[in-house]
Amino acid sequence: MAQARLKIFGWGREGEGMTAEEESFSLGIHRRRFGVADFPSIPTPTLADIRLRAPRIAPPAALAGICSIDTHDRAAHAHGKGFTDAIRALSNDFASAPDVVAYPQNEQDIAAVMDWAGGAGAALIPFGGGSSVVGGVTPPANAKATITLDLDRLNKVLEIDRTSRAARIQAGIFGPDLENQLRPHGLTLRHFPQSFEFSTLGGWIATRSGGHYATLYTHIDDFVESLRVVTPAGTLESRRLPGSGAGPSPDRMFIGSEGILGVITEAWMRLQNRPKFRAGGAVRFKDFFTAARALRVLSQTGLYPSNCRILDAEEAFNTGAADGSVAIMVLAFESADHPLDAWQARALEVVRDFGGEPETAGRPDAHREGAAGQWRNAFIRMPYGREKMTPRGIVSDTFETAITWERFEAFHDNVKAATERAIRDATGRPGQVTCRFTHVYPDGPAPYFSFHALGRHGALMEQWQAIKTAASDAVIDGGGTITHHHAVGREHRPWYDRQRPDLFAAALTAAKQALDPRGVLNPGVLIDP
Amino acid sequence: MAQARLKIFGWGREGEGMTAEEESFSLGIHRRRFGVADFPSIPTPTLADIRLRAPRIAPPAALAGICSIDTHDRAAHAHGKGFTDAIRALSNDFASAPDVVAYPQNEQDIAAVMDWAGGAGAALIPFGGGSSVVGGVTPPANAKATITLDLDRLNKVLEIDRTSRAARIQAGIFGPDLENQLRPHGLTLRHFPQSFEFSTLGGWIATRSGGHYATLYTHIDDFVESLRVVTPAGTLESRRLPGSGAGPSPDRMFIGSEGILGVITEAWMRLQNRPKFRAGGAVRFKDFFTAARALRVLSQTGLYPSNCRILDAEEAFNTGAADGSVAIMVLAFESADHPLDAWQARALEVVRDFGGEPETAGRPDAHREGAAGQWRNAFIRMPYGREKMTPRGIVSDTFETAITWERFEAFHDNVKAATERAIRDATGRPGQVTCRFTHVYPDGPAPYFSFHALGRHGALMEQWQAIKTAASDAVIDGGGTITHHHAVGREHRPWYDRQRPDLFAAALTAAKQALDPRGVLNPGVLIDP
Repeated sequence: MAQARLKIFGWGREGEGMTAEEESFSLGIHRRRFGVADFPSIPTPTLADIRLRAPRIAPPAALAGICSIDTHDRAAHAHGKGFTDAIRALSNDFASAPDVVAYPQNEQDIAAVMDWAGGAGAALIPFGGGSSVVGGVTPPANAKATITLDLDRLNKVLEIDRTSRAARIQAGIFGPDLENQLRPHGLTLRHFPQSFEFSTLGGWIATRSGGHYATLYTHIDDFVESLRVVTPAGTLESRRLPGSGAGPSPDRMFIGSEGILGVITEAWMRLQNRPKFRAGGAVRFKDFFTAARALRVLSQTGLYPSNCRILDAEEAFNTGAADGSVAIMVLAFESADHPLDAWQARALEVVRDFGGEPETAGRPDAHREGAAGQWRNAFIRMPYGREKMTPRGIVSDTFETAITWERFEAFHDNVKAATERAIRDATGRPGQVTCRFTHVYPDGPAPYFSFHALGRHGALMEQWQAIKTAASDAVIDGGGTITHHHAVGREHRPWYDRQRPDLFAAALTAAKQALDPRGVLNPGVLIDP
Repeated sequence: MAQARLKIFGWGREGEGMTAEEESFSLGIHRRRFGVADFPSIPTPTLADIRLRAPRIAPPAALAGICSIDTHDRAAHAHGKGFTDAIRALSNDFASAPDVVAYPQNEQDIAAVMDWAGGAGAALIPFGGGSSVVGGVTPPANAKATITLDLDRLNKVLEIDRTSRAARIQAGIFGPDLENQLRPHGLTLRHFPQSFEFSTLGGWIATRSGGHYATLYTHIDDFVESLRVVTPAGTLESRRLPGSGAGPSPDRMFIGSEGILGVITEAWMRLQNRPKFRAGGAVRFKDFFTAARALRVLSQTGLYPSNCRILDAEEAFNTGAADGSVAIMVLAFESADHPLDAWQARALEVVRDFGGEPETAGRPDAHREGAAGQWRNAFIRMPYGREKMTPRGIVSDTFETAITWERFEAFHDNVKAATERAIRDATGRPGQVTCRFTHVYPDGPAPYFSFHALGRHGALMEQWQAIKTAASDAVIDGGGTITHHHAVGREHRPWYDRQRPDLFAAALTAAKQALDPRGVLNPGVLIDP
């Protein structure tokens, strides 16, 4: 069970990363994109370079055994995995490192650390896998002291209810560990965000993570049957209920609360049987909007494909899924219960109505072949790219939103144009903005944009911020959400503040004061401290 | 558009009620059930009998035009439609009648009435169709004065987005009016609670109403795309988003808030295309638990039937759906997009694995025939029974809950036995307790119990309360929810208080104080004033 340590810079654990082949493939695309032969590179930080300030607080004796002030521990909890995190690490800026990292073994430890933090006037930052790309785990700069609460040790499936297909699971469990502990029971959560390997159940719930299913059960929200949450005011547990109409849902107050109301310690989660039947494959369309129109109809059929992502031509090219002349739909049905011929047949009728050409339809593992398989592999490996590209001055990032269908096309064009313009203005040369859909609803899609710009060392942060600001303004001005599944954290706050109703923020602030009267938990995330 | 007035006693509008045939059918069942030949009857209240106290407040001149102190208006807003409401009306107890009924024409009127109520120290009770069976619209006894806010005039579909299949709809619209205004667009909300005719969109959202679909979209919750809410602190509006991960959902704080946080004035609702394809019919099982086990498997297949209710043998007999020797499953699939043969075929395989015998499977309108059709008609007409049976001393009521599958059978037996015991203890003779499922989830069913006891005039309230208390204790002790879709109101408060986490109540109370600092809205519902 002894795993390598989490990296202090980059994705995942020490020893993991892009293969030479993947790196070369990516660099090739960037060379062609920017018309340059090479990318001047700056060195990446090593532990030996990092000088942290002395801890401003020391744990009480009773907590010393679960607390660490080790430099690697503190440095590995200084940042998340977003672009700004990479830039700060590259600048050897680890000022946000927490003074102490606590590794609670149980809820009593968590309550004790909260009490300590409250008494010491310290900010407490709940930490799962640390994969936030929005500053959700970054200790705040203006706190008197900071303690990161790493839930790594709460990593067990505690109880299985095979009849109801549910399990009681500790919040600090990582994705692969969770699936490994469910597998012997023939069960699966089937929640596979891109961060799956390096994110945790509690993190998914706290951030309304988006997962495997492109339709129906898109967010973790619907899989939560009940929660246990430790707050500074005490511990609460909701009932295991398949459904209820008793007042506003207590679970829904904590789902998406990003650690400001309490620390989720365990949850009863709704599970699935492992799929036995599959159908699907890739479908080519002449362009992205045609694919989107087909997908709109498909999303309204009630067929509920498990996957129906679409990629624009450039996105398909970038991931090796197509040659850049066509948009791609990755379509898949899965079931543990029944063959899917009728489902697939009707879905193919719909896509053909829009000129869609199935690539490998019908073969049982078509979802692992051709454009679909290519996309799937690239998707999983993508987060390893940042640590290789950012030191070369390449500003690559993504942002995602959701919008109703009737606004989508104009919205897409505005957001894309605003982002492209900002890239030109900020870097002095064109970049690239591509789009795919990660999830889709009967009333609209969740578009996911990627952008690539060639930046300049020393100015990368400002260049990124200019692009991010323009893109986010366009999203919010166009009526979208500042995040479909990446959460708000610290970086999306300005736009979240424009999005959420002021009176909801007032109500949420009041609720926080009731649960966290000393303002210990994640101050500045979602609402003002 | 001029409709008859709502009754002051009984279900629906003046002039509507059970037919002589329906009444005779019901009485026949009660005679056999209790072994009596006749039921001594007491008179039902008429407007002329009702003496209301003089209004304790008078509207300011600016609001006089939308306010009424008419006796019928006040009496028709004194009670909901629950058993206790019927008993109080039969006792000519209209003490809960509001001092004033306000009929706002728009949000400005609502804000003005709220201001007036706040200044006058009056309690304000939002009122849709008044179909609450849990004391949700009953003005509180201890208020200085009470104003009922009847949203009847906010009855329009304001905007249709055919592309995204959504509509912006005013909250005071009744079910039939809503469907009538959507029909020309080929759209339907498909939310058909039993109260459909006499309940409103805003009421459904405020109480997390359960509707047409037995699986998947069981509650109104999932159909809400965005909300507008007037609170004493101001008006808020959430964004129209098909999905979002930006903090806890603002909508989910108001969905189920039962009028304590604000008055829902309009909502963008997700709609469906009108179904063109249907499959289904009734399936007979040897007993209820066998039907339940079949339904558990069916609920976990991913087939998502629109209907898959089961009735125990006594329930099936009482509604004329079967002869009392078998349990019945009412199974239906519907689609606007595709034939349902594959869905129906697989569902029938599942039910046959449990010895289920389809009655009329395969015929396109089988859902309107045989046991299924019989059940459907009885279901819609059922609420008209209370005004005829209560004056005859018949204590009939229902309660509903939800529980995970692995606890269901023991839970069912305990709840049923506790209720039967309470009927014997309270009335001195056996009654009847039956069960059906109204909704079903992969992790558990929503059992719906009906009970029938022969009470004694003068003691009906105490007898009912003893039975209700025993049943509710058994539900809560067994791990269920005190309500799956009837809401909490005033009557479920003692059990809701045992069910919801204390810290959630603290957070909700704090949120209410932020939005309703003078405690105007529905004091005593869900949380203490």
